[in-house]
Amino acid sequence: MKNSLPTITAFKNSPDRGRGLARDMRVRWALEEVGQAYDVKLFTFEELKQTPYKNLQPFGQIPSYQEGDFILFESGAIVQYIAEKHSGLLPTETKARARAIMWMFSALNTMEPPVFELSLFLIVEKEKPWFKDRLPMLEERIHVRMKDFVASLGDKDWLDGEFNAGDLLMVTVLRRLEGKGILERYPTIQAYISRAEARPAYQRAFAAQLAVYQESLKT
Amino acid sequence: MKNSLPTITAFKNSPDRGRGLARDMRVRWALEEVGQAYDVKLFTFEELKQTPYKNLQPFGQIPSYQEGDFILFESGAIVQYIAEKHSGLLPTETKARARAIMWMFSALNTMEPPVFELSLFLIVEKEKPWFKDRLPMLEERIHVRMKDFVASLGDKDWLDGEFNAGDLLMVTVLRRLEGKGILERYPTIQAYISRAEARPAYQRAFAAQLAVYQESLKT
Repeated sequence: MKNSLPTITAFKNSPDRGRGLARDMRVRWALEEVGQAYDVKLFTFEELKQTPYKNLQPFGQIPSYQEGDFILFESGAIVQYIAEKHSGLLPTETKARARAIMWMFSALNTMEPPVFELSLFLIVEKEKPWFKDRLPMLEERIHVRMKDFVASLGDKDWLDGEFNAGDLLMVTVLRRLEGKGILERYPTIQAYISRAEARPAYQRAFAAQLAVYQESLKT
Repeated sequence: MKNSLPTITAFKNSPDRGRGLARDMRVRWALEEVGQAYDVKLFTFEELKQTPYKNLQPFGQIPSYQEGDFILFESGAIVQYIAEKHSGLLPTETKARARAIMWMFSALNTMEPPVFELSLFLIVEKEKPWFKDRLPMLEERIHVRMKDFVASLGDKDWLDGEFNAGDLLMVTVLRRLEGKGILERYPTIQAYISRAEARPAYQRAFAAQLAVYQESLKT
C-alpha cells in the first residue's frame, strides 16, 4: 500500500456551506473520537455522478471510506466499522453493544427520513404553490418524533450510558434541523446537541470540514 | 425466565393487508433463516401509541424484540443482532461482514427513504390538488436509485457473495414498490426479489404474517 491512512471522500463545495451537515462529518467525527488520522479526497457534484466515482460508490454519494483495496460506503456502516476496529465508540458487552447499534439505526431509519424530507422540501419546493399547505404536515411528522425522543432521553446525558456511536449519528441527524424553527421547542434536545458539540473530537472534525469549505471559496 | 423464546411485536391489523410489507417481516424472515423459533405479541395502532407499548418502543413502532429483560427495536438493529447471535446471515471475515452491514444501511438509509416517501404520499395526499404535480418527482427519485442499484447488482444473484442480511433488508425495501408501476422497468430487480421470495425461510415468514392478517378478518 502506498498510503497507510484510510481515505474518505467528501464534497469539494458542500451545499451546507461548511455547517458540518454533510454526511462526511459523521465519519470525520468517528475517526477523531478514536484518534485515527485520515486523508480526504474531494469531489464536485458533477464528478460524484460520473463513472469513476460511481465505481467506488454506486449511488454517487459521499462519504466513502477506503483502506487499500477495501472500500466501504454508507455513513452508518463506516461509523460501525470504525467503532469495531477501534475502542471507544461501541460498548463491548453484547447487549449494550446491540442497544448502541439500535440507536444508530434509529437515527438513520426513524429520525433522519422526516428530517431529510423537510430539508429537501425547503430547498426544492420553496416556490411551489403547495409549499405553505404541505409545510405544517412535514413539520408535524418531525415533532411527533421529537416528543418521543425527548421522553426517551429523559434527563440522561446520552442515550444509553456513555457517549457512543448511537449518540454520534443521532446528533448529526438532529443538527440538520438547525435554523428550521423546530429545535427551539426542545431545550433538552438542544442541550444534548450542545454536549456533543463540546467534545474535542467533534470540534476537530467540524474544523476540518469547515476548512474544506473555506478553501473552496478561494477558487 | 418464564419464556425461553424471543418475542417480537407486530400489528394486530396490518395496513398492508397481509402482503408482508410491514417491518416485522424483516425480523420474522431473519429468525426463519437462522432457524430460531419465536413468539409474537400483536398490537392495534391505538395500543402502539400509548404508554405501555411506548415503554417498550419509544416511537410506538413495530417491531420490537425481547429476550427476557433485554429489549431491542429498529428492524435493522434486530436483524443485525440475530445475525450476530446465529450463523448464516453475516459473513465471518471482517471486511465481507462490513460490506454486508454496508448493504443493510444502504437498504434502510439510501433506498428506503424515497420508497417510503412515495408510499406515504400515495396514501395521505392522494386527494390533494398537487398530487399529480408532485408524483413524477417522487417517482424519479426512486428511478435514480433503481438505475444505480441495477448497475451495482449487475448479473450477480446477491449483492456480495452469498445471500446475507444486506440482501434480506434490501429485498424487504424493494418489495414496498410492488403495485406502483416502478419495478416493471427493472427485470433484474424483479428477478432478485423473486430469488429471495423463493427461499423457504422467506415463505415461512410470509405465511406467518399472512396468518395474523387472516385471523384479524375474523374478529
